[in-house]
Amino acid sequence: MTADAATGSAGWRSIDGTMADWAARADGSPLLAFIDSCLRGIGQVCFMNNPVTGLAILVAMFVAEAWLGFAGALGLVVSTLSAILIGMDRGAIRAGLFGFNGILVGAGLSLFLQPDWDVLVMVWIVVGAFFSTVLHGALASVFIGAWKVPPFTLAFNFITLIFLIGALNFANGRVGGLVAPADAQVTRGEVSNTLRAATDAASANNIEGVLNAILRGISQLFFANSVVSGIIIILGLAVCSRIAAVFALVGSTVGMLTGLALGANGVAIYNGLWGFNSFDAALAVGGVFFVLTWRSGLLAVACAVLAALLFGAIASLFTPWGLPALTLPFVFATLAFVLLKDASTELEPVAVEDITTPENHLSRKRAEPGVESQPVAAA
Amino acid sequence: MTADAATGSAGWRSIDGTMADWAARADGSPLLAFIDSCLRGIGQVCFMNNPVTGLAILVAMFVAEAWLGFAGALGLVVSTLSAILIGMDRGAIRAGLFGFNGILVGAGLSLFLQPDWDVLVMVWIVVGAFFSTVLHGALASVFIGAWKVPPFTLAFNFITLIFLIGALNFANGRVGGLVAPADAQVTRGEVSNTLRAATDAASANNIEGVLNAILRGISQLFFANSVVSGIIIILGLAVCSRIAAVFALVGSTVGMLTGLALGANGVAIYNGLWGFNSFDAALAVGGVFFVLTWRSGLLAVACAVLAALLFGAIASLFTPWGLPALTLPFVFATLAFVLLKDASTELEPVAVEDITTPENHLSRKRAEPGVESQPVAAA
Amino acid sequence: MTADAATGSAGWRSIDGTMADWAARADGSPLLAFIDSCLRGIGQVCFMNNPVTGLAILVAMFVAEAWLGFAGALGLVVSTLSAILIGMDRGAIRAGLFGFNGILVGAGLSLFLQPDWDVLVMVWIVVGAFFSTVLHGALASVFIGAWKVPPFTLAFNFITLIFLIGALNFANGRVGGLVAPADAQVTRGEVSNTLRAATDAASANNIEGVLNAILRGISQLFFANSVVSGIIIILGLAVCSRIAAVFALVGSTVGMLTGLALGANGVAIYNGLWGFNSFDAALAVGGVFFVLTWRSGLLAVACAVLAALLFGAIASLFTPWGLPALTLPFVFATLAFVLLKDASTELEPVAVEDITTPENHLSRKRAEPGVESQPVAAA
Repeated sequence: MTADAATGSAGWRSIDGTMADWAARADGSPLLAFIDSCLRGIGQVCFMNNPVTGLAILVAMFVAEAWLGFAGALGLVVSTLSAILIGMDRGAIRAGLFGFNGILVGAGLSLFLQPDWDVLVMVWIVVGAFFSTVLHGALASVFIGAWKVPPFTLAFNFITLIFLIGALNFANGRVGGLVAPADAQVTRGEVSNTLRAATDAASANNIEGVLNAILRGISQLFFANSVVSGIIIILGLAVCSRIAAVFALVGSTVGMLTGLALGANGVAIYNGLWGFNSFDAALAVGGVFFVLTWRSGLLAVACAVLAALLFGAIASLFTPWGLPALTLPFVFATLAFVLLKDASTELEPVAVEDITTPENHLSRKRAEPGVESQPVAAA
Repeated sequence: MTADAATGSAGWRSIDGTMADWAARADGSPLLAFIDSCLRGIGQVCFMNNPVTGLAILVAMFVAEAWLGFAGALGLVVSTLSAILIGMDRGAIRAGLFGFNGILVGAGLSLFLQPDWDVLVMVWIVVGAFFSTVLHGALASVFIGAWKVPPFTLAFNFITLIFLIGALNFANGRVGGLVAPADAQVTRGEVSNTLRAATDAASANNIEGVLNAILRGISQLFFANSVVSGIIIILGLAVCSRIAAVFALVGSTVGMLTGLALGANGVAIYNGLWGFNSFDAALAVGGVFFVLTWRSGLLAVACAVLAALLFGAIASLFTPWGLPALTLPFVFATLAFVLLKDASTELEPVAVEDITTPENHLSRKRAEPGVESQPVAAA
Repeated sequence: MTADAATGSAGWRSIDGTMADWAARADGSPLLAFIDSCLRGIGQVCFMNNPVTGLAILVAMFVAEAWLGFAGALGLVVSTLSAILIGMDRGAIRAGLFGFNGILVGAGLSLFLQPDWDVLVMVWIVVGAFFSTVLHGALASVFIGAWKVPPFTLAFNFITLIFLIGALNFANGRVGGLVAPADAQVTRGEVSNTLRAATDAASANNIEGVLNAILRGISQLFFANSVVSGIIIILGLAVCSRIAAVFALVGSTVGMLTGLALGANGVAIYNGLWGFNSFDAALAVGGVFFVLTWRSGLLAVACAVLAALLFGAIASLFTPWGLPALTLPFVFATLAFVLLKDASTELEPVAVEDITTPENHLSRKRAEPGVESQPVAAA
């Protein structure tokens, strides 16, 4: 909130992009710097190194459910603190790179463990958030060191899945009803892709169904199932990058359409489950890891399709344990496309250490003297 | 066919090895170059950068089943075209390195999806072939960049499995009866390794059973279950490399023997399922990735055994989803042995960028002045 | 035994640490060198490059069960011989780095295959031990080459699991009753974490239960379920490193406590199943891969917790096939923490090629002129 007030008075320019001026000012106070690091950590789930974006997302989580917002904030604070205690790179901490896994661990465990506001569940969130920081540090060392790509939210996925699958057999595991092991089987004959809010709800194969699928598809990245939260998140993204906000909507739409084309369960599509991996994947490829061109824009759409295919595959793969696919589909799809950076001569990759915002990547490229004689295509 | 006619008139030498002269001539016409790239892509499934070998394999697929040949060709063309559109390295495309995953995706989906000649199945093949090119580009970047080994057919395996496992729950998934989820259980008491064509067929524990196991073991790499196809493929391999053809037969034989020794299902052995991974693995180690010596020849046999062990393991691992092991056993076994290149001082590895044919590796080595005073052992 | 006698007469100093003097003397006789390599291979399961430690562990295995000791020794000899035949690096062989996977393959298969002293089981041990050497060579090339960390016991885990899972469907697979596939399900309501020797045994929630859990937790790393074996192993570790012996006990205790906190099955905890991964993980982080400081000591405890969490997760993951978690939890937990070496500026990592003993790492650091002005904290 301090961050919001401070930047609000300084006009639009001061909250656009990565807010470097504000970060420098926040560094004057350890508490402000910590809060700024945490808020940037929320934004980093969507590659937005911007505390206002992070704050908007946190608000969206609280709007959906107070326990969700609290659990996410708990994981966020613990994972960021852990990074400081272990002695991780200060620049990475300040950019929120040790917060984005933690908030997802907290939010994810709050959804799949029961009951809400349980002290033991909070303990597991603290433990999981700590280990997410350790694992992210390890994975980043391998991924960036050897392959020049980040591990995205892999640490959150591994830590959350490790806890949930073990919890099946722990007296204190607290797994809730959403984790329901079952036999994998050929169910395609019984699947209907009619959009609807619940199995027994009326058909929503119209503009209402489509809007729900797309906007809940935005909010589901943060384990919120809410149209309003989806709108707040899109606005939050737009503060940092309009291109990112557009690709988020495009990606969620592509995920929905892929689910419809495959004939996936319409209740899942309506509730946004086919959108959240695709939205983050499209956003990453369309401007963040590649300078936005027609080619990278089309690849962003293709990446959203692959993320949706992977969502169907991983959900099916996890059936015997009743585990959620989380954001593994986003991680694998995005890795596949981002790793093309050295394979294709037609793409213009942005090195991990040079990433700011899609808009800034475009303007930096225009400023390069004579690298290319043709004007740069932007979507 | 153009390729075949052109080279046929130029005599034996012109179709042996990698046919560099022909490739240079084909480059004169974009269409010829594209066809040549595609045919080399078929041969590259067995590391044969030779369009005549590729053509022979395609014929073998059509001989087994026209739909199989068509589906494979569709995947092949789409994956090669995709590589051109994305802007992949032209030399790699011309060597067929963006075709071998595509033909396997097409062939594999044609077998495991139903019905034959279905338009929707063709759509899924096009989608899968496109993503196999993206994924292969990404994997090649990681594997060759960081470890100096290729990812083999990993992209085909991942894309096909991703599609098949999701399809269990897609109304438009089109999975056929060969994908049958079941509980893993200890079945060893009921398993008979008597060679026979089907569960209710007569025993074939004789020369007929053995020949079927070995030759169908060759054809099964391309999802063909046919003795005639196996013979055509062996002849096609021999056009490019006699050493490769011999190791293909040795590998398929070793796979069969490993299955018999373990007491695996005799129907599966008879139909070549224990041969195809082992044949490609033996071929890779025995002359392609290591200069052929007695030691690398013995390791090729050991690699074929490991591929067979992995086939049994992965088939069992995939039981709960009813998925096929595809060529994952070949990939993992071959990786294990090829990665020994820097671990052993007694082996003579061939760097990925220097691979041509086993015969050429041997003659290059003989031409090296004084690296070794002893004559080189060849199998 | 020769090794023991020779060093016994030379006084305490001669058997402490890595026994470099003895190794040089053993090199005079090929047989002695081979035996020394094998014994060091046993110690290397716990990062102890010391033949007396190895001999103590072998004795502990024979004390628990003669067949266990024999099977382990068989795997050890075969894997070490295989490394010589393939032409692996001689220094690595002499340090026991091609023995530690082999002894575990032999011991593991002796436990999970039936009956004891069966000739066919011995054949599978020979085959598995050979492949463990190939796979370790390959993995070490990738892990050390690209990431500067060793693959730990990954080769043992992969080879043993590959064999066990395939064996479910092999007439000659010889899987015993400990491999029992079952449906994963939410069993937490029926789980009791009361410490006891067996499901129908009396409660042992006292010093006896705790001692059993901790000491059996030591011996279970070598598939021995015995308090006496646990004590012998601790003494054997202390010969090479007192710090390692202390962290072994700390790690096993932390594993037990984590199991109790999660509410895991008390019979499993009593029999040491929650201890063995945690003990090896704590030992690795607390002095071997990081110079021992307060910070690395605390991280060693955290690593033991993660190993325990992973044990619960992997055991649950493997339920559908009835497979054991083996030492995969140790491998993944230790990798996560060891990979922090470049991520944290507060830790003092020891490069893989410089590893000797925790004590030696501390004294080397003290000998460095002026790197740090403050005295070094040691546990």
